[in-house]
Amino acid sequence: MTKASERKVMRVLAGETVFPPPVWLMRQAGRYLPEYRETRSRAKGFLDLCYTPDLAVEVTLQPIRRFGFDAAILFSDILVIPDALDRNVRFVEGTGPLMDPISADAIASLDASGMHAHLASVYETVRRLRSELPSETTLLGFCGAPWTVATYMIAGRGTPDQAPARLFAMQHPEAFMKLLDLLAEISADYLIAQIDAGADAVQIFDSWAGVLGERDFSRFAIGPVKRMVETIRKERPGVPIIGFAKGAGAMLNSYRSSTGVDCVGLDWTVPSAQAREIQKEGAVQGNLDPLLMVAGGAALDQGVDEVLETLGHGPLVFNLGHGITPQADPENVTRLLNRVRGAGQR
Amino acid sequence: MTKASERKVMRVLAGETVFPPPVWLMRQAGRYLPEYRETRSRAKGFLDLCYTPDLAVEVTLQPIRRFGFDAAILFSDILVIPDALDRNVRFVEGTGPLMDPISADAIASLDASGMHAHLASVYETVRRLRSELPSETTLLGFCGAPWTVATYMIAGRGTPDQAPARLFAMQHPEAFMKLLDLLAEISADYLIAQIDAGADAVQIFDSWAGVLGERDFSRFAIGPVKRMVETIRKERPGVPIIGFAKGAGAMLNSYRSSTGVDCVGLDWTVPSAQAREIQKEGAVQGNLDPLLMVAGGAALDQGVDEVLETLGHGPLVFNLGHGITPQADPENVTRLLNRVRGAGQR
Repeated sequence: MTKASERKVMRVLAGETVFPPPVWLMRQAGRYLPEYRETRSRAKGFLDLCYTPDLAVEVTLQPIRRFGFDAAILFSDILVIPDALDRNVRFVEGTGPLMDPISADAIASLDASGMHAHLASVYETVRRLRSELPSETTLLGFCGAPWTVATYMIAGRGTPDQAPARLFAMQHPEAFMKLLDLLAEISADYLIAQIDAGADAVQIFDSWAGVLGERDFSRFAIGPVKRMVETIRKERPGVPIIGFAKGAGAMLNSYRSSTGVDCVGLDWTVPSAQAREIQKEGAVQGNLDPLLMVAGGAALDQGVDEVLETLGHGPLVFNLGHGITPQADPENVTRLLNRVRGAGQR
Repeated sequence: MTKASERKVMRVLAGETVFPPPVWLMRQAGRYLPEYRETRSRAKGFLDLCYTPDLAVEVTLQPIRRFGFDAAILFSDILVIPDALDRNVRFVEGTGPLMDPISADAIASLDASGMHAHLASVYETVRRLRSELPSETTLLGFCGAPWTVATYMIAGRGTPDQAPARLFAMQHPEAFMKLLDLLAEISADYLIAQIDAGADAVQIFDSWAGVLGERDFSRFAIGPVKRMVETIRKERPGVPIIGFAKGAGAMLNSYRSSTGVDCVGLDWTVPSAQAREIQKEGAVQGNLDPLLMVAGGAALDQGVDEVLETLGHGPLVFNLGHGITPQADPENVTRLLNRVRGAGQR
C-alpha cells in the first residue's frame, strides 16, 4: 500500500528527481484506444460521457489497465465549467465544441450558484477513481485556465487564434476582467472539490496562452492562475499544482515564480536550454512531440532519449508536449513506456 | 530624389536608429480597404490578381497613396511558388488556399524549370512598382520560407497546427529534406529575380515556424533560410533581408545569428525584454498586436506607445506583429501613423 506522498508522480511534484521518471500522457484516455471508442459509443454524447460516473471511471481506468501509467487523470473536459454556467455547451462530431457566445452585458448576470450540484457526478467519478486505482497511481484532477475557458465562452467555439476573445478584451476590458475573476474563483472552488473527492494533485490547462502579448499574458494568463493557486494553497495546503501554459514561448521562464505553481508543463516547442533553466527552479512535465506517437519507430526512440537526456537528471514527470492524438498507435505507447522505463538499464 | 540607401526603411535595415521609426504594415494591401475590394472584384480570382500587373500594381500602391507608408510590399502570395511547381493552387472563398497534397514519391519529380516564365508577371509588377512609387518609398519583395511553403504543399491546405507536414517529416525524412532543399533553392532564385526587377529589400515569411520543436526548428526553419540568405548575399551582395519566424518563442533569440538575416521580424507575443535583447544585435521589425487595428481608441494608442518605448531607441521598422485583418478600420491606420510620426514631438 503506497501512501499518497510516496507515489512517484507526487515525489517529483515535490521536487525530487526520480529516474527513470514517472510517465503519464495528456489525453491518455482517448480516441486512439479501441476500448475508449467502445465505451464512448454507449454514451449519448460527449458531455454524457463526462457526467456518467460509470462511464467516466471506466475510460479513466482503461489506459491505466493497459499501460500501467504512473498517473491517471480524471476523464472530463475544460468546458464543463461554461456548461455549469448554462452556456449551452455541446460537442458536434467533426466540428468541436460549441456554446452560446456571451455578450459583455451578460457577463454580470452569470450565475455560478448551481455549479457544485451540476458537477456532483464529476466529484463522484473522482471518489470512485481513488478507491479503484492501484495505490501507487497518482490521481490528477484538472480544469481549464480562466483565459482559455473565456476564449471559448466569448467566441462560442475554437478559432485558429482565439482572436474574438482578444478583441473582446480590448473592446470590453472591464467586463472581460470580471469574467476572468469569476472563472478564477469558481475554477479554484472546482479544483478544491476535486481534491476533497480524492485528487492527489491538479493541473490547470492554459491551452491558448500562446496567442497573448506580454501585457495580456500577465493580466489574462498569469493573474487569474496566481489567484487560483493562492486560494488552493490557503484552503488545501500541500496539494501540488501543475500549470501548463501552451505556447507561452519566452514568457514561460517566469511562469513558476509569477503564478506559484509547483510544476511547469512544457509543450514540445520549448527548446532544451530553456527547459533546463525552468527545471532549475523545480519540477517540469513534458515534452515529447505528440506526433511521435503516430510516427513511432526510431524517430520515437530518439525523441524519448532527447527528453530524458535534457530533463531526466532533474525532477521530471515524463509526458507529451500536448495531448495524444486519435491517430496515435497504442503500440507506440508501449514502445515509449519501455524506452523510458528501460532507461535505467541502458 | 531619394537614393535607395537613403530610404528610411533601408537606413534602419542597415542598422541605423531612425526616430520616429519608418512604418509599414504586413498585408497593408488587403481586404480592410474598400479600394482593394473594388479592384479585387475585377479579377477572376485571387491568383489572377497576383498575376495581372495592372491589378497587382494598383493594389500595392493603394495603401501608399492613402497612408504614405514608408515601404510598399509587392502584392502577391507565398503560394505562387507551389503554383509555379504545378500543384494546382486555388483560393476558395471562406476556405482559404487549397492545392493537391504532394506524396513522398512525387517530390523527386517536381520540376522548377518553368518557374521564371510562370512568375514573369510578378517581376513585371515589381518593375512597374519601382518606377511608379515615390522615390522615398522602400519597395519590398518577399516569399514564404521553405518550411511554411512545404506545410501547405503536404497538407494541401492550412490546418490548425500543420500536423500533416510535421508527421510527414517524421515518416519520410529524406523526401522531406529534398523538398526543403528544392524550395530553398528556387525561393532564393525567386527573390533574386525580384531584386533584379527593382526590390530594395526582401522579407522571408515563416508563418508556421511556431509549431516546430527545437531540432526541427533548426533543420526545417533555420537551415533552409540560412542557405537562402547565403545564396542571396553571394549573388546580390548588400540587399537587406528581413526574416519573420512567427511564434518562434525562445528560439527567436538566435535567429539572426543562425540564419544571417539583417532584420528580425517580431510577432506580437514576443515580450519586451526578449525583443530588446534581439535588437541589441541589429534591426527589428514589429510588433503591435494586429487586433488593435480593429479595436482602435486608447488601447491602440497605448499599444503604439509601448512598442516605441520598448524598441524606438534602436533600429526599428514599425509594423504589426502579423498581418492586418479584414475587420480593421482604415481610420485606425491613420491614427497609428499619426501616433508614431507624432512621437518625435511628444
